[in-house]
Amino acid sequence: MTKYQSDIRYMHRALDLALLGQGLTKTNPIVGCVIVKNGKVVGEGFHKVFGGPHAEVNALKKSGKAAKGATLYVNLEPCYPFLGKKTPPCVEKVIAAGIKRCVIAMKDPNPKVSGRSISLLKKHGVKVELGLLGELAESINEPFIKIIKTGLPLVVSKMAVTLDGKAAAYNGNSKWISNEASRTLVHLKRSKLDSVMVGIGTIQKDNPELNVRMAKGRNPVKVIIDPMCEISLKAKVLKDYKTVLLVVNTNAKKQRVDKILKMKIKVIAVPGKIGTVNLKSALSALPVLGISSVMLEGGPTLLTAALKEKVVDRIMWFISPKILGSDGKSVVGPMGFKSISEAIKVSQPVFHGLDGDILVEGQIS
Amino acid sequence: MTKYQSDIRYMHRALDLALLGQGLTKTNPIVGCVIVKNGKVVGEGFHKVFGGPHAEVNALKKSGKAAKGATLYVNLEPCYPFLGKKTPPCVEKVIAAGIKRCVIAMKDPNPKVSGRSISLLKKHGVKVELGLLGELAESINEPFIKIIKTGLPLVVSKMAVTLDGKAAAYNGNSKWISNEASRTLVHLKRSKLDSVMVGIGTIQKDNPELNVRMAKGRNPVKVIIDPMCEISLKAKVLKDYKTVLLVVNTNAKKQRVDKILKMKIKVIAVPGKIGTVNLKSALSALPVLGISSVMLEGGPTLLTAALKEKVVDRIMWFISPKILGSDGKSVVGPMGFKSISEAIKVSQPVFHGLDGDILVEGQIS
Repeated sequence: MTKYQSDIRYMHRALDLALLGQGLTKTNPIVGCVIVKNGKVVGEGFHKVFGGPHAEVNALKKSGKAAKGATLYVNLEPCYPFLGKKTPPCVEKVIAAGIKRCVIAMKDPNPKVSGRSISLLKKHGVKVELGLLGELAESINEPFIKIIKTGLPLVVSKMAVTLDGKAAAYNGNSKWISNEASRTLVHLKRSKLDSVMVGIGTIQKDNPELNVRMAKGRNPVKVIIDPMCEISLKAKVLKDYKTVLLVVNTNAKKQRVDKILKMKIKVIAVPGKIGTVNLKSALSALPVLGISSVMLEGGPTLLTAALKEKVVDRIMWFISPKILGSDGKSVVGPMGFKSISEAIKVSQPVFHGLDGDILVEGQIS
Repeated sequence: MTKYQSDIRYMHRALDLALLGQGLTKTNPIVGCVIVKNGKVVGEGFHKVFGGPHAEVNALKKSGKAAKGATLYVNLEPCYPFLGKKTPPCVEKVIAAGIKRCVIAMKDPNPKVSGRSISLLKKHGVKVELGLLGELAESINEPFIKIIKTGLPLVVSKMAVTLDGKAAAYNGNSKWISNEASRTLVHLKRSKLDSVMVGIGTIQKDNPELNVRMAKGRNPVKVIIDPMCEISLKAKVLKDYKTVLLVVNTNAKKQRVDKILKMKIKVIAVPGKIGTVNLKSALSALPVLGISSVMLEGGPTLLTAALKEKVVDRIMWFISPKILGSDGKSVVGPMGFKSISEAIKVSQPVFHGLDGDILVEGQIS
């Protein structure tokens, strides 16, 4: 194995370790770290939980004195000292441990500190190599990067549609558009993203739990867009009240909101026209609540509003090879596009076959 | 190579040869034949054109005396003598040539003669093996099999849709839903299927030529469903009058029909409610005109009628990763399905990525 090949191998390992923290680090990045000396791994670690020790700290702890003269692989530039930080930042620990070479997949995306730790490492004689598997590193930390750059969480539209773009029959029947494989994947994804978001229409129509049942993993926060605070106090989604966040319009009736608050459910009030809320405002309130990613699970009204407000970053649409006809419920409402060139484009689309369904993923450009 | 491996190899060759006749044999099957002796190919042939010599005849001619004691591979049971046949049938020629072993992918699908040639071969001491690559053999002769079994041509629905099932913007703009790779494949397919079928609405809206331009190959017959005979005499599609077939309702105005007939364009009159035609009647008239397959290219009105009449066998839908909104034109009209379980299912779906578009192919069950 050449040095380049082994570098790739260890960086892949660091990325795999980072992914173990997916869904657990809230607005922190997911980070994995591998320390290698004389061709042997002497320490590994990852960021396990928001508020817990960083990946580098865990890996350095494992490697102990063996870190001296070793190479450290990490998918994100180690953190830099800043005013008020209580514990020593990772970059200082890396230097203190005597790491000789540092392979970093990507810089800190925060323009204010980006590159500073790298400079500090170099200043202390640590050889730094930047950019190995950089695109992959960026893709696994999309939510973190989005928040740093915009203050908003990553929004992924999840929908199940027929070949002719319908999300339900004309009478609302939607069980099931997609197959078991697709639905299992949705549950797995719910366990990895910080929250799912639905409109009040979906709650009233389907009375969903929005929990993780078909896969193992923790439940996401359920963000319910309910402008007029119309939700039934018996809705299944409210059972696990600790994981619910209700978003109401600032004009919602205080009486109703109070009833929800009495159930110990978190409520945030957001401006917006009567009967709606400004989704960007709602989304901007989520990071401080520890939410870095949102799986927008519908329904069509919410998705249409989100597309119009341009707050959707990615799609994760399951297409089932069925034809329902134009009297079925459309997955998206009217957009007013006069030509195909005005249509919303999904860039870098990727397709996966799922036992007969197709999963289409891509970025909204 | 084991005997089984070489059998597979030569049968694949026979199938490849058969495909060279695709689009040229009208309602005849496509057939390829390979004759092998002592591990060497001594003759090959395929059915090149409707009315021309059969694959076996061409291959036997090439192999001459070398056919004696050889193995013959063919994708379809050789033809059997029937009353009034002017030339000796293939099965007799195979026997006369001294073929020792005959590997046949599939039986003749016509229940009246199916297996008769095989019996005759065996009776004359020819060793027969049946069924090698049989499914593949059936798939390449789908149009032929469909006609034999039902009297109707194979109908393939071709559509270009957005992710949300729209075929055009609300004002009719549909240029272009699908990308160049998809459109090129459509042209290639037009050169392989015997006909394309569109409704008068598509002619009036898009004024298409429906020719093969983006690929090499012969033009298909253009079947236009025009119940009231409303087509403009200046429509582009009428230029190449020899390749046009207009389908009108038996109630269409004689005056208008006469104008079309004067242009030397073929017209067939079919029963049906005012403003429509019975599609099954229209389709049943096509085989005698040498049409074994139809690519139904839309628009939505025709497709909806075809789905309701259950005359569509397969789909070939190009999905473009775009979102147009519910005010766009739906690819299919109202079907009245009350639940997802009533939806039309596409079985054995196969997906192909096409430069960002997805091609979904499958059978309508």
